[in-house]
Amino acid sequence: MTKVIDFRTDPGQYRHWRVDYDGPVANLYMDVDEDGGLFEGYQLKMNSYDLGVDIELADVVQRMRFEHPEVKVVVMQSAKPGIFCAGANIRMLGGAAHSHKVNFCKFTNETRNTFEAAEADSGQKYIAAVKGACAGGGYELALACNHIMLTNDSTSSVALPEVPLLAVLPGTGGVTRVTDKRKVRRDRADIFCSTEEGVKGQRAVDWRLVDEIVANSTFEQTVAERAREFAEASAKADVAAGIKLGRVERQISEDGSLSYALLDVAVDRDAGTATITLNGPQDAAPADMDAFTAQGDRAYLLQLARELDDAILHLRLNEMQLGLLVFRSQGDPALFDSHERLLMDNADHWLANEVLQYWKRLLKRVDMTSRSLVALVEHGSCFTGILAELLFAVDRSYMMEDEFEGDNRPMATVTLTEANFGRFPMGNDLTRLQTRFLGEPEAVDRAEAQKGTALEAAEADEFGLVTMILDDIDWEDEIRIFMEERLSLSPDAMTGLEANVRFAGPETMETRIFGRLTAWQNWIFNRPNAVGPEGALQRYGTGVRGKYNMERV
Amino acid sequence: MTKVIDFRTDPGQYRHWRVDYDGPVANLYMDVDEDGGLFEGYQLKMNSYDLGVDIELADVVQRMRFEHPEVKVVVMQSAKPGIFCAGANIRMLGGAAHSHKVNFCKFTNETRNTFEAAEADSGQKYIAAVKGACAGGGYELALACNHIMLTNDSTSSVALPEVPLLAVLPGTGGVTRVTDKRKVRRDRADIFCSTEEGVKGQRAVDWRLVDEIVANSTFEQTVAERAREFAEASAKADVAAGIKLGRVERQISEDGSLSYALLDVAVDRDAGTATITLNGPQDAAPADMDAFTAQGDRAYLLQLARELDDAILHLRLNEMQLGLLVFRSQGDPALFDSHERLLMDNADHWLANEVLQYWKRLLKRVDMTSRSLVALVEHGSCFTGILAELLFAVDRSYMMEDEFEGDNRPMATVTLTEANFGRFPMGNDLTRLQTRFLGEPEAVDRAEAQKGTALEAAEADEFGLVTMILDDIDWEDEIRIFMEERLSLSPDAMTGLEANVRFAGPETMETRIFGRLTAWQNWIFNRPNAVGPEGALQRYGTGVRGKYNMERV
Repeated sequence: MTKVIDFRTDPGQYRHWRVDYDGPVANLYMDVDEDGGLFEGYQLKMNSYDLGVDIELADVVQRMRFEHPEVKVVVMQSAKPGIFCAGANIRMLGGAAHSHKVNFCKFTNETRNTFEAAEADSGQKYIAAVKGACAGGGYELALACNHIMLTNDSTSSVALPEVPLLAVLPGTGGVTRVTDKRKVRRDRADIFCSTEEGVKGQRAVDWRLVDEIVANSTFEQTVAERAREFAEASAKADVAAGIKLGRVERQISEDGSLSYALLDVAVDRDAGTATITLNGPQDAAPADMDAFTAQGDRAYLLQLARELDDAILHLRLNEMQLGLLVFRSQGDPALFDSHERLLMDNADHWLANEVLQYWKRLLKRVDMTSRSLVALVEHGSCFTGILAELLFAVDRSYMMEDEFEGDNRPMATVTLTEANFGRFPMGNDLTRLQTRFLGEPEAVDRAEAQKGTALEAAEADEFGLVTMILDDIDWEDEIRIFMEERLSLSPDAMTGLEANVRFAGPETMETRIFGRLTAWQNWIFNRPNAVGPEGALQRYGTGVRGKYNMERV
Repeated sequence: MTKVIDFRTDPGQYRHWRVDYDGPVANLYMDVDEDGGLFEGYQLKMNSYDLGVDIELADVVQRMRFEHPEVKVVVMQSAKPGIFCAGANIRMLGGAAHSHKVNFCKFTNETRNTFEAAEADSGQKYIAAVKGACAGGGYELALACNHIMLTNDSTSSVALPEVPLLAVLPGTGGVTRVTDKRKVRRDRADIFCSTEEGVKGQRAVDWRLVDEIVANSTFEQTVAERAREFAEASAKADVAAGIKLGRVERQISEDGSLSYALLDVAVDRDAGTATITLNGPQDAAPADMDAFTAQGDRAYLLQLARELDDAILHLRLNEMQLGLLVFRSQGDPALFDSHERLLMDNADHWLANEVLQYWKRLLKRVDMTSRSLVALVEHGSCFTGILAELLFAVDRSYMMEDEFEGDNRPMATVTLTEANFGRFPMGNDLTRLQTRFLGEPEAVDRAEAQKGTALEAAEADEFGLVTMILDDIDWEDEIRIFMEERLSLSPDAMTGLEANVRFAGPETMETRIFGRLTAWQNWIFNRPNAVGPEGALQRYGTGVRGKYNMERV
């Protein structure tokens, strides 16, 4: 699997999904093209999916929010008779490298979170209209919807058959959503997750696995009614027209470096680093949200988000040897602030809201990126507000102190804004500053009192906003030594350490899915009972069951 | 490692620990015997430990609470010059099977939790008096104490060098206690956990890694003062004398079955099951706590706890092929209830409190046991109060309904008592019934209204207290089919599933350690970068660093 995976797509390129827009209701059809797999060696039968299918779904969900703000209800359904979705494709999983499996699950999880949160964040409620078998990743699609309707007939059921069939866990949050979102009683969850055939009919409602069952004969009609009801009950304001999301343009050079309009990624494969430079805005902020809307996908903060998102996904899946991502910025902090302020001051405007929600998701994607992350606050940088959040997302930050010889750029500063105090919670539902200062909550207040002040190194250090400040004499050596040391450590140990250090404090369904469920799945994905030559994943479809070592660990 | 590991010990057998009792202060010295390893092939140098060392520590902590209730402060310290504790023995880890490593870490974690909770549960506060190097598992011992004092000299430091040195995570809750108990700022935690040399002096205080530093010259004196202060400030009531914990007697037969005074464990290695039968009391409950105290370790509820604890630990470490533990009980529910009521009604009596706290720990140990757990509520059983908690700890429960042909035992019932509504929280800080009914909290109230009523099968089912009720016709077949199916599943997948299904709802430091940190550690313990022939654990001490695959997963 060495081809470059491209996360950029658009409806004209879709092979697996279709959307019919009907005023406030969008009908989203899953109709996976068997021969449209991202890689060779498997067919996507029975609406099973691979990463390519999920890339399109993520694109659908994103466009729904920006291009179709009139939509209040999305009905997710299958265009194939007798089957809703059979889940992740088993042959794909059986053939995939461990690292691909893990990154595939992470991306699908992020996509599930995105459409699950669309109701709270954007007033777009997802209904799963399940007809036919809905198994494994298929049921996980439904679980991430806000309302599940199941046909009440002899063939329609919901199931999580991964454990009995494949000797792995459901990989996209299924178990956690069963216990923590649906709040299924634990012994019933145990039965449900260890039987292949799943649950149907009234029992599916009694066990809280679906919200309602509907007779086959009236299913379409009832689903349409429910969609209409939800749309009418929606508090989402009416928006006449969205904006068009054009293609994110980029150049990739031979050494892997990327160049976007507002972003550069310098890749050093020998060293194992990618240096991401975010460039500040060149022009004044739009005068108001009408002007912002007129700029569409060229509006600075939207374009920057889309480019950063693409860069991170690209690095995750296509550059697995790069262990350290370095964040830099260059630009005018005050100018950046004026762009941010327009959105923050108009957060009730639908598009301002969408851009801010997008940054929320994107910053979470940074948090969840299992590479070591460092930020360099150099002279001439613009770590202000939203960009300052990056300083609290990374594992460590280094800041230039005092003047550097021959460096005429403006002195390095960090400026906190309203954006750092609530708009961008982490997966644990705390702000990054609250998580940072878990041991001294008063430090958050002290920092908040500095809002709007461009803090130079000594002050940023005093307020605990950066890890280390370094002057001209030490800067280069210290950074070099840090990078060398970091990249000499075992990547597996770093992944485990970062997954534990980054998310202190309370846990949420989201942190449980990424932190706990994922870790167990990763473990199982390494065990011979699942992935060995006689394991269940390899033997699936051969008619021979997996052969298990029965030792309990 | 096929020898039988015995968890029973007593001070006369200790090779690694020593306690000096001095009124309300106990001085606990770690003085590991290099040649006292549980297995061949390694020496326990520099106060490093293996499971044998931890078995003694667990025994010390347990006896402290029952035999020495006069103790209010325990000072954990090293009897070796220049070293506090070097952590888990690396050669032992390098040579141990994956399953042993995992079970070793689980037991050490349970022991850490036990002495950490001793302050809140029993008024016994642990001070770590650290002189010399305190690294890895050594610092984790200190982290689990309630107060950490560090000598302020050039050689005394605290460190978690696992990641850089061994390419694994600290295995006994270290990272989670750093972020969630000590609440160390995350970038500092990142530095701390990725540097071998650790942190000493004032920085250790500034970074919240220790509570105080003390000059070398006045260290012993200051520690003694602090212990006296804590003892004087303690709210723990004065108790003149404890009770003696004699040896837990048992017979093991050739097929692995165990026989205790109050407990039987029928092992079927071919089937992969262990059936644990808890027998109700034979005699009337002691009249009062004086009579209970006079019975000492023969008091029914204390003896039963000790036997069950021993049985579970034995099965975990010595019978890894048994995938299913079956809990049965036989006895008079009313008589059991009278024994329980004596303790519940006198919960402020020191010994009643200790026995109840012990059951709390023991029930958590059941929760954490990575085997499939099932309870059979048969005719003649006594699942009442504390024993009914077992029904909510297991993955599934089956109950006999109506009369069974030729079975003259009293009808199967379940009786809830005060014990089911707060005295025995799980690791997530909810009761087992609260966790069970997360989706319908009112069901807890409905169940509470039934307190004291012996509920037959139909009622127990109606109130959601058992998974399934079965009559004479179905019982045998259904149970057999369940067991066969269960034991045909991949043990690894079951371990992962159970770890996720059992602990719905809020997370605590405890669930994070067992659920999240442990899962990541398990994953890393399977990765070549740690355990492969060129991995860090194998190469430790050879002077050659581990050779890592640099791919980031």
